[in-house]
Amino acid sequence: MAGYGPTPIEFWFDFASPYAYLAAQTIEETGARLGRRIHWRPFLIGVAFKTTGMAPLNQVPLRGDYARHDVARLARRLGVPYREPVAQAQLSLPTSRAFYWLERVAPALAPAFARAALDAIFGAGADLSRPEGVAAVVAQVGGDAAVVSAALADPAVKEALRAATDEALARGVFGSPFMIVDGEPFWGSDRLPLLEEWVRSGGW
Amino acid sequence: MAGYGPTPIEFWFDFASPYAYLAAQTIEETGARLGRRIHWRPFLIGVAFKTTGMAPLNQVPLRGDYARHDVARLARRLGVPYREPVAQAQLSLPTSRAFYWLERVAPALAPAFARAALDAIFGAGADLSRPEGVAAVVAQVGGDAAVVSAALADPAVKEALRAATDEALARGVFGSPFMIVDGEPFWGSDRLPLLEEWVRSGGW
Repeated sequence: MAGYGPTPIEFWFDFASPYAYLAAQTIEETGARLGRRIHWRPFLIGVAFKTTGMAPLNQVPLRGDYARHDVARLARRLGVPYREPVAQAQLSLPTSRAFYWLERVAPALAPAFARAALDAIFGAGADLSRPEGVAAVVAQVGGDAAVVSAALADPAVKEALRAATDEALARGVFGSPFMIVDGEPFWGSDRLPLLEEWVRSGGW
Repeated sequence: MAGYGPTPIEFWFDFASPYAYLAAQTIEETGARLGRRIHWRPFLIGVAFKTTGMAPLNQVPLRGDYARHDVARLARRLGVPYREPVAQAQLSLPTSRAFYWLERVAPALAPAFARAALDAIFGAGADLSRPEGVAAVVAQVGGDAAVVSAALADPAVKEALRAATDEALARGVFGSPFMIVDGEPFWGSDRLPLLEEWVRSGGW
Protein backbone atom coordinates (compact mmCIF):
# COMPACT_ATOMS: atom_id res chain seq x y z
CA MET A 1 0.00 0.00 0.00
CA ALA A 2 1.50 3.31 -1.03
CA GLY A 3 1.35 6.21 1.35
CA TYR A 4 3.24 8.80 3.29
CA GLY A 5 4.47 8.43 6.85
CA PRO A 6 6.65 5.77 8.42
CA THR A 7 6.88 2.34 6.81
CA PRO A 8 4.54 -0.29 8.27
CA ILE A 9 5.50 -3.28 10.35
CA GLU A 10 5.14 -6.30 8.07
CA PHE A 11 3.54 -9.13 10.01
CA TRP A 12 4.11 -12.40 8.13
CA PHE A 13 2.34 -15.42 9.55
CA ASP A 14 0.66 -18.73 8.80
CA PHE A 15 -2.90 -19.09 10.10
CA ALA A 16 -2.01 -22.50 11.58
CA SER A 17 0.73 -21.03 13.78
CA PRO A 18 -0.08 -20.76 17.49
CA TYR A 19 2.70 -18.21 17.96
CA ALA A 20 1.02 -16.06 15.29
CA TYR A 21 -2.14 -16.17 17.43
CA LEU A 22 -0.12 -14.97 20.42
CA ALA A 23 1.56 -12.16 18.46
CA ALA A 24 -1.80 -11.10 17.02
CA GLN A 25 -3.06 -10.35 20.53
CA THR A 26 -0.68 -7.42 20.97
CA ILE A 27 0.89 -6.44 17.65
CA GLU A 28 -1.64 -3.70 16.84
CA GLU A 29 -0.88 -2.12 20.23
CA THR A 30 2.83 -2.33 19.47
CA GLY A 31 2.22 -0.61 16.16
CA ALA A 32 0.06 2.08 17.78
CA ARG A 33 2.76 2.85 20.36
CA LEU A 34 5.33 3.18 17.56
CA GLY A 35 3.08 5.09 15.17
CA ARG A 36 3.44 2.25 12.65
CA ARG A 37 0.67 0.53 10.74
CA ILE A 38 0.62 -3.28 10.84
CA HIS A 39 0.67 -4.89 7.39
CA TRP A 40 -0.88 -8.33 7.91
CA ARG A 41 0.71 -10.80 5.46
CA PRO A 42 -0.54 -14.39 5.75
CA PHE A 43 1.43 -16.94 3.75
CA LEU A 44 1.83 -20.71 3.51
CA ILE A 45 4.74 -21.68 5.71
CA GLY A 46 4.76 -25.22 4.31
CA VAL A 47 6.42 -23.82 1.19
CA ALA A 48 9.20 -22.31 3.33
CA PHE A 49 9.62 -25.61 5.16
CA LYS A 50 10.44 -27.25 1.82
CA THR A 51 13.33 -24.80 1.43
CA THR A 52 14.67 -24.87 4.99
CA GLY A 53 14.03 -28.51 5.81
CA MET A 54 12.33 -27.32 8.99
CA ALA A 55 9.12 -29.02 10.08
CA PRO A 56 5.91 -28.00 11.83
CA LEU A 57 6.63 -27.54 15.55
CA ASN A 58 4.33 -30.31 16.67
CA GLN A 59 6.11 -32.83 14.45
CA VAL A 60 9.52 -32.27 16.06
CA PRO A 61 10.28 -34.56 19.04
CA LEU A 62 10.94 -32.70 22.33
CA ARG A 63 10.51 -29.32 20.63
CA GLY A 64 6.86 -30.13 19.95
CA ASP A 65 6.24 -30.91 23.62
CA TYR A 66 7.99 -27.70 24.62
CA ALA A 67 5.98 -25.62 22.14
CA ARG A 68 2.66 -26.99 23.40
CA HIS A 69 3.66 -26.16 26.97
CA ASP A 70 5.08 -22.78 25.97
CA VAL A 71 2.07 -21.62 23.94
CA ALA A 72 -0.32 -22.60 26.72
CA ARG A 73 1.61 -20.68 29.39
CA LEU A 74 2.04 -17.60 27.16
CA ALA A 75 -1.73 -17.61 26.49
CA ARG A 76 -2.35 -17.76 30.26
CA ARG A 77 0.09 -14.88 30.70
CA LEU A 78 -1.87 -12.81 28.15
CA GLY A 79 -5.15 -13.87 29.70
CA VAL A 80 -6.50 -15.35 26.46
CA PRO A 81 -7.94 -18.82 25.83
CA TYR A 82 -5.92 -21.40 23.94
CA ARG A 83 -7.04 -24.59 22.22
CA GLU A 84 -5.24 -27.02 19.99
CA PRO A 85 -6.40 -26.08 16.48
CA VAL A 86 -8.89 -28.20 14.57
CA ALA A 87 -7.70 -29.52 11.16
CA GLN A 88 -4.44 -27.62 11.61
CA ALA A 89 -2.82 -28.85 8.39
CA GLN A 90 -5.82 -27.91 6.24
CA LEU A 91 -6.86 -24.52 7.58
CA SER A 92 -4.14 -22.23 6.21
CA LEU A 93 -5.13 -22.43 2.54
CA PRO A 94 -8.82 -21.42 2.76
CA THR A 95 -8.25 -18.89 5.55
CA SER A 96 -5.36 -17.21 3.73
CA ARG A 97 -7.32 -17.10 0.48
CA ALA A 98 -10.25 -15.48 2.27
CA PHE A 99 -7.85 -12.86 3.64
CA TYR A 100 -6.47 -11.98 0.19
CA TRP A 101 -9.99 -11.95 -1.27
CA LEU A 102 -11.07 -9.44 1.39
CA GLU A 103 -7.93 -7.40 0.80
CA ARG A 104 -9.09 -7.01 -2.83
CA VAL A 105 -12.79 -6.36 -2.28
CA ALA A 106 -12.93 -4.75 1.19
CA PRO A 107 -9.37 -3.98 2.31
CA ALA A 108 -10.37 -2.37 5.57
CA LEU A 109 -11.87 -5.69 6.71
CA ALA A 110 -8.82 -7.84 6.00
CA PRO A 111 -6.80 -7.16 9.19
CA ALA A 112 -9.92 -7.55 11.33
CA PHE A 113 -10.63 -10.83 9.57
CA ALA A 114 -7.09 -12.08 10.21
CA ARG A 115 -7.28 -11.31 13.91
CA ALA A 116 -10.78 -12.78 14.21
CA ALA A 117 -9.74 -15.91 12.30
CA LEU A 118 -6.76 -16.54 14.60
CA ASP A 119 -9.01 -16.02 17.62
CA ALA A 120 -11.60 -18.42 16.14
CA ILE A 121 -8.95 -21.08 15.44
CA PHE A 122 -6.94 -20.91 18.66
CA GLY A 123 -9.38 -19.30 21.07
CA ALA A 124 -12.71 -20.85 20.15
CA GLY A 125 -11.64 -24.09 18.45
CA ALA A 126 -13.47 -23.29 15.18
CA ASP A 127 -12.80 -25.45 12.13
CA LEU A 128 -11.48 -23.04 9.50
CA SER A 129 -10.53 -25.79 7.09
CA ARG A 130 -14.21 -25.70 6.01
CA PRO A 131 -15.61 -22.87 3.86
CA GLU A 132 -18.54 -22.52 6.28
CA GLY A 133 -16.11 -21.95 9.13
CA VAL A 134 -14.29 -19.27 7.13
CA ALA A 135 -17.59 -17.70 6.06
CA ALA A 136 -18.70 -17.37 9.68
CA VAL A 137 -15.62 -15.30 10.47
CA VAL A 138 -16.10 -13.21 7.33
CA ALA A 139 -19.65 -12.47 8.47
CA GLN A 140 -18.42 -11.65 11.97
CA VAL A 141 -16.22 -8.81 10.65
CA GLY A 142 -18.94 -7.49 8.30
CA GLY A 143 -17.96 -9.18 5.02
CA ASP A 144 -20.22 -10.88 2.48
CA ALA A 145 -20.30 -14.47 3.71
CA ALA A 146 -22.54 -15.62 0.85
CA VAL A 147 -19.76 -15.33 -1.72
CA VAL A 148 -16.93 -16.89 0.31
CA SER A 149 -17.06 -20.29 -1.38
CA ALA A 150 -16.82 -18.70 -4.82
CA ALA A 151 -14.07 -16.36 -3.65
CA LEU A 152 -11.95 -19.26 -2.38
CA ALA A 153 -11.98 -20.73 -5.90
CA ASP A 154 -11.25 -17.42 -7.67
CA PRO A 155 -8.01 -17.75 -9.70
CA ALA A 156 -7.00 -14.16 -8.86
CA VAL A 157 -7.34 -14.91 -5.13
CA LYS A 158 -5.32 -18.10 -5.45
CA GLU A 159 -2.66 -16.15 -7.31
CA ALA A 160 -2.55 -13.43 -4.63
CA LEU A 161 -1.74 -16.05 -1.97
CA ARG A 162 0.83 -17.70 -4.21
CA ALA A 163 2.50 -14.34 -4.80
CA ALA A 164 2.53 -13.52 -1.06
CA THR A 165 4.08 -16.90 -0.28
CA ASP A 166 6.71 -16.42 -2.98
CA GLU A 167 7.44 -12.95 -1.64
CA ALA A 168 7.82 -14.30 1.91
CA LEU A 169 10.44 -16.79 0.77
CA ALA A 170 12.23 -14.20 -1.36
CA ARG A 171 12.39 -11.88 1.67
CA GLY A 172 13.93 -14.61 3.84
CA VAL A 173 10.81 -15.31 5.91
CA PHE A 174 11.19 -18.87 7.18
CA GLY A 175 9.03 -18.95 10.32
CA SER A 176 5.77 -17.69 11.78
CA PRO A 177 5.26 -15.10 12.97
CA PHE A 178 8.01 -13.10 11.29
CA MET A 179 8.05 -9.31 11.46
CA ILE A 180 10.02 -6.93 9.25
CA VAL A 181 10.29 -3.23 10.00
CA ASP A 182 12.51 -0.83 8.05
CA GLY A 183 14.15 -3.93 6.55
CA GLU A 184 14.99 -5.41 9.95
CA PRO A 185 13.75 -8.99 10.53
CA PHE A 186 12.38 -10.38 13.80
CA TRP A 187 11.34 -14.01 14.12
CA GLY A 188 8.92 -15.11 16.82
CA SER A 189 6.17 -13.64 18.94
CA ASP A 190 8.61 -13.22 21.81
CA ARG A 191 10.61 -10.73 19.74
CA LEU A 192 7.92 -8.02 19.71
CA PRO A 193 9.50 -6.20 22.70
CA LEU A 194 12.87 -6.27 20.93
CA LEU A 195 11.30 -4.97 17.71
CA GLU A 196 9.81 -2.11 19.72
CA GLU A 197 13.18 -1.35 21.33
CA TRP A 198 14.83 -1.47 17.89
CA VAL A 199 12.43 1.05 16.38
CA ARG A 200 12.54 3.39 19.38
CA SER A 201 16.35 3.33 19.65
CA GLY A 202 17.04 3.43 15.93
CA GLY A 203 18.75 0.05 16.13
CA TRP A 204 22.03 -1.24 17.50
CA MET B 1 24.94 -29.95 44.39
CA ALA B 2 22.98 -30.46 47.60
CA GLY B 3 22.13 -27.44 49.68
CA TYR B 4 19.42 -25.41 51.28
CA GLY B 5 17.73 -22.40 49.78
CA PRO B 6 15.92 -21.99 46.47
CA THR B 7 16.63 -24.38 43.60
CA PRO B 8 19.21 -23.15 41.08
CA ILE B 9 18.55 -22.08 37.52
CA GLU B 10 19.85 -24.89 35.32
CA PHE B 11 21.69 -23.40 32.35
CA TRP B 12 22.06 -26.07 29.66
CA PHE B 13 24.16 -25.08 26.67
CA ASP B 14 26.57 -26.23 23.99
CA PHE B 15 29.89 -24.37 23.86
CA ALA B 16 29.49 -23.93 20.07
CA SER B 17 26.21 -22.05 20.47
CA PRO B 18 26.36 -18.29 19.85
CA TYR B 19 23.08 -17.80 21.71
CA ALA B 20 24.69 -19.49 24.73
CA TYR B 21 27.44 -16.86 24.55
CA LEU B 22 24.79 -14.14 24.57
CA ALA B 23 22.90 -15.67 27.51
CA ALA B 24 26.16 -16.12 29.42
CA GLN B 25 26.68 -12.35 29.38
CA THR B 26 23.73 -11.73 31.70
CA ILE B 27 22.53 -14.96 33.28
CA GLU B 28 24.53 -14.58 36.50
CA GLU B 29 22.98 -11.13 36.97
CA THR B 30 19.54 -12.64 36.38
CA GLY B 31 20.30 -15.27 39.02
CA ALA B 32 21.59 -12.66 41.47
CA ARG B 33 18.44 -10.55 41.09
CA LEU B 34 16.31 -13.65 41.75
CA GLY B 35 18.46 -15.04 44.56
CA ARG B 36 19.07 -18.17 42.50
CA ARG B 37 22.38 -19.84 41.79
CA ILE B 38 23.19 -20.64 38.14
CA HIS B 39 24.00 -24.30 37.56
CA TRP B 40 26.11 -24.32 34.37
CA ARG B 41 25.44 -27.54 32.43
CA PRO B 42 27.32 -27.86 29.12
CA PHE B 43 26.24 -30.77 26.93
CA LEU B 44 26.65 -31.95 23.33
CA ILE B 45 23.67 -30.68 21.38
CA GLY B 46 24.58 -32.85 18.39
CA VAL B 47 23.17 -35.81 20.30
CA ALA B 48 19.85 -33.98 20.74
CA PHE B 49 19.83 -33.10 17.04
CA LYS B 50 19.86 -36.81 16.25
CA THR B 51 16.63 -37.19 18.23
CA THR B 52 14.83 -34.08 17.00
CA GLY B 53 16.04 -34.04 13.41
CA MET B 54 16.97 -30.40 13.97
CA ALA B 55 20.24 -29.12 12.54
CA PRO B 56 22.88 -26.57 13.55
CA LEU B 57 21.52 -23.07 12.86
CA ASN B 58 24.12 -22.20 10.29
CA GLN B 59 23.24 -25.25 8.21
CA VAL B 60 19.58 -24.28 7.77
CA PRO B 61 18.85 -22.13 4.69
CA LEU B 62 17.33 -18.70 5.48
CA ARG B 63 17.33 -19.44 9.21
CA GLY B 64 21.13 -19.54 9.19
CA ASP B 65 21.32 -16.11 7.57
CA TYR B 66 18.84 -14.76 10.08
CA ALA B 67 20.74 -16.22 13.03
CA ARG B 68 24.04 -14.68 11.91
CA HIS B 69 22.36 -11.29 11.58
CA ASP B 70 20.47 -11.73 14.85
CA VAL B 71 23.45 -12.79 16.96
CA ALA B 72 25.54 -9.90 15.66
CA ARG B 73 22.88 -7.29 16.47
CA LEU B 74 22.20 -8.78 19.92
CA ALA B 75 25.93 -8.66 20.68
CA ARG B 76 26.00 -4.99 19.63
CA ARG B 77 22.99 -4.38 21.88
CA LEU B 78 24.86 -5.92 24.83
CA GLY B 79 28.02 -4.05 23.89
CA VAL B 80 30.11 -7.22 23.58
CA PRO B 81 32.30 -8.33 20.68
CA TYR B 82 31.16 -11.15 18.40
CA ARG B 83 33.14 -13.30 16.00
CA GLU B 84 32.21 -16.36 14.01
CA PRO B 85 33.68 -19.23 16.04
CA VAL B 86 36.82 -21.06 14.92
CA ALA B 87 36.44 -24.84 14.39
CA GLN B 88 32.86 -24.63 15.58
CA ALA B 89 32.03 -28.30 15.02
CA GLN B 90 35.08 -29.53 16.94
CA LEU B 91 35.20 -27.24 19.98
CA SER B 92 32.31 -28.57 22.10
CA LEU B 93 33.87 -31.89 23.04
CA PRO B 94 37.20 -30.69 24.51
CA THR B 95 35.72 -27.57 26.08
CA SER B 96 32.86 -29.48 27.72
CA ARG B 97 35.25 -32.15 29.00
CA ALA B 98 37.47 -29.48 30.52
CA PHE B 99 34.42 -28.06 32.27
CA TYR B 100 33.44 -31.41 33.82
CA TRP B 101 37.05 -32.08 34.79
CA LEU B 102 37.19 -28.74 36.63
CA GLU B 103 33.84 -29.47 38.24
CA ARG B 104 35.45 -32.58 39.77
CA VAL B 105 38.81 -31.14 40.81
CA ALA B 106 38.09 -27.44 41.42
CA PRO B 107 34.32 -26.92 41.31
CA ALA B 108 34.46 -23.23 42.13
CA LEU B 109 36.40 -22.63 38.90
CA ALA B 110 33.99 -24.44 36.56
CA PRO B 111 31.41 -21.64 36.04
CA ALA B 112 34.18 -19.06 35.58
CA PHE B 113 35.78 -21.36 33.03
CA ALA B 114 32.52 -21.77 31.13
CA ARG B 115 31.97 -18.03 30.91
CA ALA B 116 35.61 -17.38 29.97
CA ALA B 117 35.54 -20.15 27.34
CA LEU B 118 32.42 -18.71 25.68
CA ASP B 119 34.03 -15.27 25.70
CA ALA B 120 37.23 -16.71 24.21
CA ILE B 121 35.33 -18.55 21.46
CA PHE B 122 32.85 -15.84 20.45
CA GLY B 123 34.52 -12.68 21.70
CA ALA B 124 38.20 -13.27 20.99
CA GLY B 125 38.07 -15.86 18.21
CA ALA B 126 40.17 -18.41 20.11
CA ASP B 127 40.44 -21.96 18.79
CA LEU B 128 39.07 -24.15 21.57
CA SER B 129 39.07 -27.28 19.46
CA ARG B 130 42.78 -27.55 20.41
CA PRO B 131 43.90 -28.65 23.90
CA GLU B 132 46.30 -25.67 24.01
CA GLY B 133 43.38 -23.33 23.44
CA VAL B 134 41.40 -24.94 26.23
CA ALA B 135 44.44 -24.93 28.53
CA ALA B 136 44.89 -21.19 28.04
CA VAL B 137 41.37 -20.56 29.32
CA VAL B 138 41.92 -22.98 32.24
CA ALA B 139 45.02 -20.99 33.17
CA GLN B 140 43.12 -17.74 32.82
CA VAL B 141 40.64 -18.76 35.54
CA GLY B 142 43.34 -20.14 37.85
CA GLY B 143 43.26 -23.85 36.98
CA ASP B 144 46.17 -26.21 36.38
CA ALA B 145 46.79 -25.87 32.65
CA ALA B 146 49.62 -28.41 32.66
CA VAL B 147 47.28 -31.35 33.21
CA VAL B 148 44.52 -30.35 30.74
CA SER B 149 45.59 -32.73 27.98
CA ALA B 150 45.58 -35.66 30.37
CA ALA B 151 42.27 -34.56 31.86
CA LEU B 152 40.60 -34.46 28.44
CA ALA B 153 41.46 -38.14 27.99
CA ASP B 154 40.36 -39.19 31.48
CA PRO B 155 37.60 -41.84 31.22
CA ALA B 156 35.80 -40.40 34.25
CA VAL B 157 35.69 -36.97 32.59
CA LYS B 158 34.42 -38.43 29.34
CA GLU B 159 31.74 -40.27 31.29
CA ALA B 160 30.68 -37.10 33.13
CA LEU B 161 30.02 -35.35 29.81
CA ARG B 162 28.19 -38.38 28.44
CA ALA B 163 26.00 -38.48 31.54
CA ALA B 164 25.23 -34.76 31.30
CA THR B 165 24.29 -35.11 27.64
CA ASP B 166 22.06 -38.11 28.42
CA GLU B 167 20.45 -36.14 31.24
CA ALA B 168 19.80 -33.17 28.96
CA LEU B 169 17.94 -35.35 26.49
CA ALA B 170 16.02 -37.13 29.24
CA ARG B 171 14.93 -33.74 30.61
CA GLY B 172 13.66 -32.62 27.19
CA VAL B 173 16.51 -30.20 26.45
CA PHE B 174 16.66 -29.90 22.66
CA GLY B 175 18.28 -26.51 22.09
CA SER B 176 20.98 -24.19 23.39
CA PRO B 177 20.74 -22.33 25.63
CA PHE B 178 17.95 -24.00 27.57
CA MET B 179 17.13 -22.95 31.10
CA ILE B 180 15.08 -24.89 33.66
CA VAL B 181 13.96 -23.37 36.94
CA ASP B 182 11.62 -25.09 39.39
CA GLY B 183 10.90 -27.58 36.60
CA GLU B 184 9.85 -24.86 34.14
CA PRO B 185 11.68 -24.90 30.77
CA PHE B 186 12.80 -21.84 28.80
CA TRP B 187 14.48 -22.20 25.40
CA GLY B 188 16.62 -19.39 24.02
CA SER B 189 18.68 -16.48 25.27
CA ASP B 190 15.77 -14.15 24.53
CA ARG B 191 13.67 -15.94 27.15
CA LEU B 192 15.72 -14.79 30.14
CA PRO B 193 13.38 -11.83 30.81
CA LEU B 194 10.40 -14.20 30.70
CA LEU B 195 12.16 -16.63 33.04
CA GLU B 196 12.71 -13.76 35.46
CA GLU B 197 9.07 -12.71 35.23
CA TRP B 198 8.02 -16.34 35.77
CA VAL B 199 10.06 -16.71 38.96
CA ARG B 200 9.00 -13.32 40.35
CA SER B 201 5.31 -13.84 39.64
CA GLY B 202 5.17 -17.49 40.62
CA GLY B 203 4.20 -18.43 37.07
CA TRP B 204 1.04 -18.13 34.98
